[in-house]
Amino acid sequence: MILRLALVGFGNVGQQFARLLMAKRDWLLRKKGLDVEVLAIATRSRGSLLSKRALDLERVLSAIGSGSLPAYGSDSTALSPIGIIEKCDADIMIELSTLNIDSGQPAIDHLRTAMRAGMDVITANKGPIAWAYEELRDIARSKGVHLRFEGTVMDGTPIFNLVERTLPGCEILGLTGILNSTSNLILGEMSRGKSMEMAVQEAQARGIAEADPSLDVDGWDASAKITALANVLMDAGMNPKMVDRLGIRGISLEEIREASAEGKKIKLVARAFREGSSIKLQVRPERVGPDSPMWAVDGTSSSLTMSTDLMGDITVVESSPALTQTAYAVFSDMLLTVEAIRHGTI
Amino acid sequence: MILRLALVGFGNVGQQFARLLMAKRDWLLRKKGLDVEVLAIATRSRGSLLSKRALDLERVLSAIGSGSLPAYGSDSTALSPIGIIEKCDADIMIELSTLNIDSGQPAIDHLRTAMRAGMDVITANKGPIAWAYEELRDIARSKGVHLRFEGTVMDGTPIFNLVERTLPGCEILGLTGILNSTSNLILGEMSRGKSMEMAVQEAQARGIAEADPSLDVDGWDASAKITALANVLMDAGMNPKMVDRLGIRGISLEEIREASAEGKKIKLVARAFREGSSIKLQVRPERVGPDSPMWAVDGTSSSLTMSTDLMGDITVVESSPALTQTAYAVFSDMLLTVEAIRHGTI
Repeated sequence: MILRLALVGFGNVGQQFARLLMAKRDWLLRKKGLDVEVLAIATRSRGSLLSKRALDLERVLSAIGSGSLPAYGSDSTALSPIGIIEKCDADIMIELSTLNIDSGQPAIDHLRTAMRAGMDVITANKGPIAWAYEELRDIARSKGVHLRFEGTVMDGTPIFNLVERTLPGCEILGLTGILNSTSNLILGEMSRGKSMEMAVQEAQARGIAEADPSLDVDGWDASAKITALANVLMDAGMNPKMVDRLGIRGISLEEIREASAEGKKIKLVARAFREGSSIKLQVRPERVGPDSPMWAVDGTSSSLTMSTDLMGDITVVESSPALTQTAYAVFSDMLLTVEAIRHGTI
Repeated sequence: MILRLALVGFGNVGQQFARLLMAKRDWLLRKKGLDVEVLAIATRSRGSLLSKRALDLERVLSAIGSGSLPAYGSDSTALSPIGIIEKCDADIMIELSTLNIDSGQPAIDHLRTAMRAGMDVITANKGPIAWAYEELRDIARSKGVHLRFEGTVMDGTPIFNLVERTLPGCEILGLTGILNSTSNLILGEMSRGKSMEMAVQEAQARGIAEADPSLDVDGWDASAKITALANVLMDAGMNPKMVDRLGIRGISLEEIREASAEGKKIKLVARAFREGSSIKLQVRPERVGPDSPMWAVDGTSSSLTMSTDLMGDITVVESSPALTQTAYAVFSDMLLTVEAIRHGTI
């Protein structure tokens, strides 16, 4: 089976995904009978490619490495991402553009357009799931296409797929987690005596924090993730602005020392829980002791505890991920989509 | 769809599973279109029932509560478990008999017999997976039936199903876990100053430890579990006698105090890892510090860290399970088996 992909967004995750496709090419052919072709790659500021035949990923990576996709030498297009989605012959559109925390756009439009054109879709961009999950799920159902999004929270660590595929009949009653690795790293560095400014700079130097760290330190990234989780797993129907949100920006070295003197660490904790008939979402710094499953979740690690009706509390921890882990999320969603296509299931 | 079950073994887990079937009867009918009937229940010392029609589970539970299944009033049989498996009209045989650590028998024969008769099978008994996984998997493949065993390790916490269904293309390179909740509980009580004898008695009083605690305190249960994990997830082809095994029997209060003075806890840790071209299995007490994901795994909780090629380390923690959690393992395996039957997949 030939599987044709369109990638919208081609930053670190997209490039790692392309590398993973190359590294797993033989495995995909031999074990899964899958010949994966990338027909289109759209970016907003570094050019786009659109082809009827498989792009040569090695040349694509060298082109983007040199600064822009048109350096590929052919198949360059001036079409917008939406135009490319409409024109391409892909089976699956993979949304990897940058998070827009205020609206989830234009990623939501990318997904809408692709699904209305009959494509299956995968997103590693949490915006659409945090802002428009119900609508997107309904479009997927009405068009009979697949919508997968494992990479939106904790990279490729199975969370959404775990609940959907291994916990049948279990109801999720609440969620608690450390979901933003940048703040977790910064708090850890501060506990070793560094100022927040230094810790942020170090995270930036390591390529972990963005140039503008406010998404992380003000709790927006964690808010988008807990919203996405609650929308999918608890039918919350909420958006990131509805989160009771306090980031780590106001945390002083003094407070961290105080917590430490109590034998505790300060962690940025995201929670979703029921209160009466409504669902509350909360992101805020908390003091965590050694008996908490969050205690050992240090550095860039993250964790999620799911409280369930039939299985009590299940915690999943992702340890010190690399960029390949988000690429793997897309890779596993691609394989699960193919499996569903083959079984004729949604 | 009517789904007919035969239960072999009807101790705590079997009875909890029967209760779960009753509690979820409406949900199964409404959401899954499943009318689940139990046609046979076999025990070795408390009688057996075999019927052409659905047994009344409420009456079955009250019969076993009064001491033996023949108190049900009808459908009593003197057939052996194997005879019952051969005679019953079940779609799925569920193996819930007691672990025999020396051979995995007679549970292996129960599974062989059922699969050869064309039944799908589910086991919560780890013996067969620790002793004869390859053979059983091959029988399942050659007969085109399903073999599921989520409940053999960490109750219903997704481990086998997680790897199979949510980590496609990921290779498991190693496993580390706290798999025996009884020893974990005993070590915890000892760290609060109790003698091992007192801690064992307390675990027995709570219904957690067996009358003969040697399976737990000598590391056999953890050995069977790490073997089952390695057989399925790393193609180890080993058995519990091949584990480099040291239990907690020799641990003194003095050692626990020493560890505590170092800021550590003693935990019974099970490991599977590659050494050259072979796989090593190990169970032994280790000193664990607060930075380990195992530190906070206290009481009857358990944990497993899976080291993978594409996703780094993923840890799953089950917190303080009740008996319902093992029953849920069987319940989820039943639903996944039905899904596979409906999709025509193995």
